[in-house]
Amino acid sequence: GDITVEQAQKVVKAAEAKARQQETLMNIAVVDAGGNLKAFSRMDGAFLGSIDISIRKAKTARLFNMSSKDLGDLAKPGQPLYGIEVTNGGLAIFGGGELIRDKAGTIIGAVGVSGSSVENDMAVAKAGAGGL
Amino acid sequence: GDITVEQAQKVVKAAEAKARQQETLMNIAVVDAGGNLKAFSRMDGAFLGSIDISIRKAKTARLFNMSSKDLGDLAKPGQPLYGIEVTNGGLAIFGGGELIRDKAGTIIGAVGVSGSSVENDMAVAKAGAGGL
Amino acid sequence: GDITVEQAQKVVKAAEAKARQQETLMNIAVVDAGGNLKAFSRMDGAFLGSIDISIRKAKTARLFNMSSKDLGDLAKPGQPLYGIEVTNGGLAIFGGGELIRDKAGTIIGAVGVSGSSVENDMAVAKAGAGGL
Amino acid sequence: GDITVEQAQKVVKAAEAKARQQETLMNIAVVDAGGNLKAFSRMDGAFLGSIDISIRKAKTARLFNMSSKDLGDLAKPGQPLYGIEVTNGGLAIFGGGELIRDKAGTIIGAVGVSGSSVENDMAVAKAGAGGL
Repeated sequence: GDITVEQAQKVVKAAEAKARQQETLMNIAVVDAGGNLKAFSRMDGAFLGSIDISIRKAKTARLFNMSSKDLGDLAKPGQPLYGIEVTNGGLAIFGGGELIRDKAGTIIGAVGVSGSSVENDMAVAKAGAGGL
Repeated sequence: GDITVEQAQKVVKAAEAKARQQETLMNIAVVDAGGNLKAFSRMDGAFLGSIDISIRKAKTARLFNMSSKDLGDLAKPGQPLYGIEVTNGGLAIFGGGELIRDKAGTIIGAVGVSGSSVENDMAVAKAGAGGL
Repeated sequence: GDITVEQAQKVVKAAEAKARQQETLMNIAVVDAGGNLKAFSRMDGAFLGSIDISIRKAKTARLFNMSSKDLGDLAKPGQPLYGIEVTNGGLAIFGGGELIRDKAGTIIGAVGVSGSSVENDMAVAKAGAGGL
Repeated sequence: GDITVEQAQKVVKAAEAKARQQETLMNIAVVDAGGNLKAFSRMDGAFLGSIDISIRKAKTARLFNMSSKDLGDLAKPGQPLYGIEVTNGGLAIFGGGELIRDKAGTIIGAVGVSGSSVENDMAVAKAGAGGL
């Protein structure tokens, strides 16, 4: 199972709706089950530096089948994966990357969100992933 | 003048409509006036290798304010810009990247399309750029 | 609004004047609103390794619309953006990158300074940004 | 002997004067005898893609102690250095990069110009190099 472009656009729309509710300006990226970019949208005025980060968060989540927050917890100083962020051309090891699952629970892709505080980014990413 | 997310989505939709008419599967990327990614969509089944190419085509068009086809014509063996493709981290020097202008003619971004023959890519990119 | 070459040269001159007052040797980079290099100057004898850092500091400030110092504070171990420096091809997460605003307060670019202590770099960058 | 920042600024000013006379919009880069960036200026409205190319032209000239045009002639299909453009992280193998010499004829740096036709780029680069 792989995410369709229709599903990816639903994820983007759900994320944007949450961002508007938060009054934040977000970059939203969706990757497929292969970790390849499927859809992307940058809200007007959103950080330019978050283009790269939103894509990286989505890829990071799919690369290890966990949220970028969970990977980040394992990558902190003193933790077992300390330093992992320099692998794979650079990982995002903070919140805002979430897996996307179909109704059966199968992972079909991931969404990455960047543009505000990590807490806001995470809430928007979860809203996106839950938008299917 | 910079492209808005609403305008970028219109460009993507116009490009997708043309691709469906052609019965091709396309990657479509939109960059803003600064050459930074604004929107992206990959149709189901479209080439994975065209993610990078579509983004590069859009950037190439904006970097030199001409279509990637026109730059490519200047970059062929024997032509004045032969070898330019290795600059800027790699340029796309074949058709499928087109400038996006507003009603007043100001360049507000560019669209890059990749997934089929260069002729089809160009037709879809032009349909996208004309979709505002 | 985007910085003009005349404004960028004023920023460089103001930064150089501050560096001479400090008796430091600086690399000074100015990027426009799109994060693209607009002007650069390296004082005689300034660190070669600071060419890259000064450009990166300016870009970092513009990519997240805050000084590289403020971003750095969020990127320390235990802070929410720990690890962000590996994104965007490498960010500078210490002081010396400052936003440039026009009279109305609109961000029109950023300046990055590198060549001495972080404190000196920051003072020169602020003098540059304030030189308009 | 290495180019000073004062000399580099003279080169930039001489190049800009020639560009204004041509009514072209140029990116102008100066590197020192070590091939490291010394000064850079982008005229308002000049191609974004020429930032990278102007720097690359200056470096290319200094890396091989000949103009980028002369290196380019050796790099064409059928010529002895065919393919050299992919070395050194990417070389510019068309005109617009010229060596800078002091009164005694010693190479003290190089200037790269990009933004118009190769012929115009070359004329501006030569005017810059001759501006000392």
